Amino acid sequence: MIYVAILGFGVVGSGAAQVLADNAAVIEKNLGKKVAVKRILDLREFPDSPFGHLVTHDFNDILNDKEITVVAEMMGGSHPAYDFTKACLEAGKHVVTSNKEVVARFGDELLALAAQNGVRYLFEASVGGGIPVIRPMTNDLASNQIEQVDGILNGTTNYILTEMIGGASFDAALKQAQANGYAEANPAADVEGLDAARKIVILAALSFGTLLSPDKIHCEGITSLTLADVAVAKALGCSLKLIGHTERIGKKVLAMVSPRMVPLACPLSGISDVFNGILVDANMVGKVMFYGAGAGKLPTASAVVADIIDIVSHLGQADVRAPHFTAATDADYADFNAYTCRSCFSFANESGAAARIAAVFGAVNTVTVDGRIAFIADAMTEQEAAAKAAATGLTLAARIRVLD
Amino acid sequence: MIYVAILGFGVVGSGAAQVLADNAAVIEKNLGKKVAVKRILDLREFPDSPFGHLVTHDFNDILNDKEITVVAEMMGGSHPAYDFTKACLEAGKHVVTSNKEVVARFGDELLALAAQNGVRYLFEASVGGGIPVIRPMTNDLASNQIEQVDGILNGTTNYILTEMIGGASFDAALKQAQANGYAEANPAADVEGLDAARKIVILAALSFGTLLSPDKIHCEGITSLTLADVAVAKALGCSLKLIGHTERIGKKVLAMVSPRMVPLACPLSGISDVFNGILVDANMVGKVMFYGAGAGKLPTASAVVADIIDIVSHLGQADVRAPHFTAATDADYADFNAYTCRSCFSFANESGAAARIAAVFGAVNTVTVDGRIAFIADAMTEQEAAAKAAATGLTLAARIRVLD
Repeated sequence: MIYVAILGFGVVGSGAAQVLADNAAVIEKNLGKKVAVKRILDLREFPDSPFGHLVTHDFNDILNDKEITVVAEMMGGSHPAYDFTKACLEAGKHVVTSNKEVVARFGDELLALAAQNGVRYLFEASVGGGIPVIRPMTNDLASNQIEQVDGILNGTTNYILTEMIGGASFDAALKQAQANGYAEANPAADVEGLDAARKIVILAALSFGTLLSPDKIHCEGITSLTLADVAVAKALGCSLKLIGHTERIGKKVLAMVSPRMVPLACPLSGISDVFNGILVDANMVGKVMFYGAGAGKLPTASAVVADIIDIVSHLGQADVRAPHFTAATDADYADFNAYTCRSCFSFANESGAAARIAAVFGAVNTVTVDGRIAFIADAMTEQEAAAKAAATGLTLAARIRVLD
Repeated sequence: MIYVAILGFGVVGSGAAQVLADNAAVIEKNLGKKVAVKRILDLREFPDSPFGHLVTHDFNDILNDKEITVVAEMMGGSHPAYDFTKACLEAGKHVVTSNKEVVARFGDELLALAAQNGVRYLFEASVGGGIPVIRPMTNDLASNQIEQVDGILNGTTNYILTEMIGGASFDAALKQAQANGYAEANPAADVEGLDAARKIVILAALSFGTLLSPDKIHCEGITSLTLADVAVAKALGCSLKLIGHTERIGKKVLAMVSPRMVPLACPLSGISDVFNGILVDANMVGKVMFYGAGAGKLPTASAVVADIIDIVSHLGQADVRAPHFTAATDADYADFNAYTCRSCFSFANESGAAARIAAVFGAVNTVTVDGRIAFIADAMTEQEAAAKAAATGLTLAARIRVLD
């Protein structure tokens, strides 16, 4: 029997206990060993849970229990999750987590600490919920140089955008997301892009070996998007999505979060509701996409338990291959002003607008929607885009980057 | 240095040599070891290839070379690929393959033989070309009971169907596929579904532990599909795809290949051209999809090299977790007549057709397209479907199953 401890008995934590219990037979069959939860750390009591008798309020009950091999941290937030993770790794316990905040801020340090202590730190559930993406990127794409990653990484915003594509206003869509339990009462981390920023820096670290700070990358959410933007996207054969994007520019790494026009030929364009998708472009395999439930109790718990199974199946083996990345220095951040991409410009459809656009942007295919005149321009830098928009003398309603 | 031998220097074999050479630096960085091709078995000479000097015509040069740790079989066909694989495993060499024919027919035996000899037999490239799917199903979904798998598993037929959705006839689309090098001069294995059948039995074996024979499952190709079928699909909000499907019915396994109407909400519906997608439904994570290039030199080679990296990173470790399945007995095959699914019925739009359809099928939403009247009926067995179609007294133009 392999014993596991759970830190944080919230949505994902209780899901992990449920996956281990309900799927005990299939896990034992796949793994050749039994895995059981021995202790659960939470401030609350859970008298009605079948796991309630395992709850402790004292972290030391877990830290000092030599029978506990793997600790699954699903507390959320940086502290005390980071501190408990560190203590567990130092005590020779393997740690798995769904906590993207801890991985995005301290992943380099915790991976190094795990290696020093001969244990592992895995975080499949930190990006894309239940979608297998971290392990496939680490293992299946190890024969490739990863060139670029684009992802729909936040289910709440994708739900809101799906509702807006269906005709709802941003405010109405957000209210519906809250009513469905997808969005928090304070939805800032979702709608302002911070959640996606944490996830894209993790994917960038796996791809390029450098962990950027989610606070230092360009991050735009979806709060300024309107139904007119949705209509323009549709008229241009695109879907409107919040996209985390990372690529290497020279030896530096660019990571960013922003709304994007996604052409319908791109497999990310059709991903709706709370689903997530991660599109990886690698130098030999080309584009591969991983799709599934990006959040939710049992899907996320499924990924946490997959990490536990990975650890148990490698127990006692030295030199298990692990993701490795180091903290970025200032020199690792690509200059956002050097980034080039195609953009969709939407101007107020004032008198003479088409001619002024042609004078500045050359021949472009414009559409007119909702009092706007809009088109997709060739790739250019942020500065060029701002300068050209100003040069038209027209009122810029929106500029939304295109996913290429 | 880890030495690899390549069996078969065709499209995929030469691609594997190229991936190992061109990506040598990234592979060494990810793996911590150098991997190089030592010998290549082929009947031909390759004087213009940078790997030409490694070619031998004698399999024993590889079998008896103690320095060769991993053999990558990319010959295609059952023999001598199976025989060489067996000899290598018995000689204590690890084997990786892209050969779906060998895996579908002999996978159970070769996995058992590998285990007996303390080596591994991996076949990521046998399904979905470069798409990571075998290893993610084995590792990342190990915390789940897999319930159902549906896949677009053959790039050639998906290209033909994409062209037909664009308005080309089957014959014209096939000619274009041949001109592009996607389809063979004799395209039977693709268009009649056999290639997809081999892949779905491999996915069924991974999901349910039982390797069915590709010759014993229901297998329909796309040769009878017409532009009218495409038009009906469109009118009903579906895409027309060739789908490999597997599920468990009681304790038995059903696997089949047939055209399906794929509702636009399903992520498989938007997969076009030669791309493949595998949609897995599992009891905790729900639906996840793996998407990418299902064939082609470098994508398929990328998966072969990922298997080599997996093997090298576990060298010297005992009890590495491996896929395991056994050959099916007659009792393992689900009765195809017991299988139920929704179907789209297309009848000739004869006088009184709507009333006769209503009398037999009840209230259904019909569309009329190209002289047909068509609708999607509730789930029923094959026999019920045939009986109900006959009971209308109308001419049945087509019945196409729906993917649910």
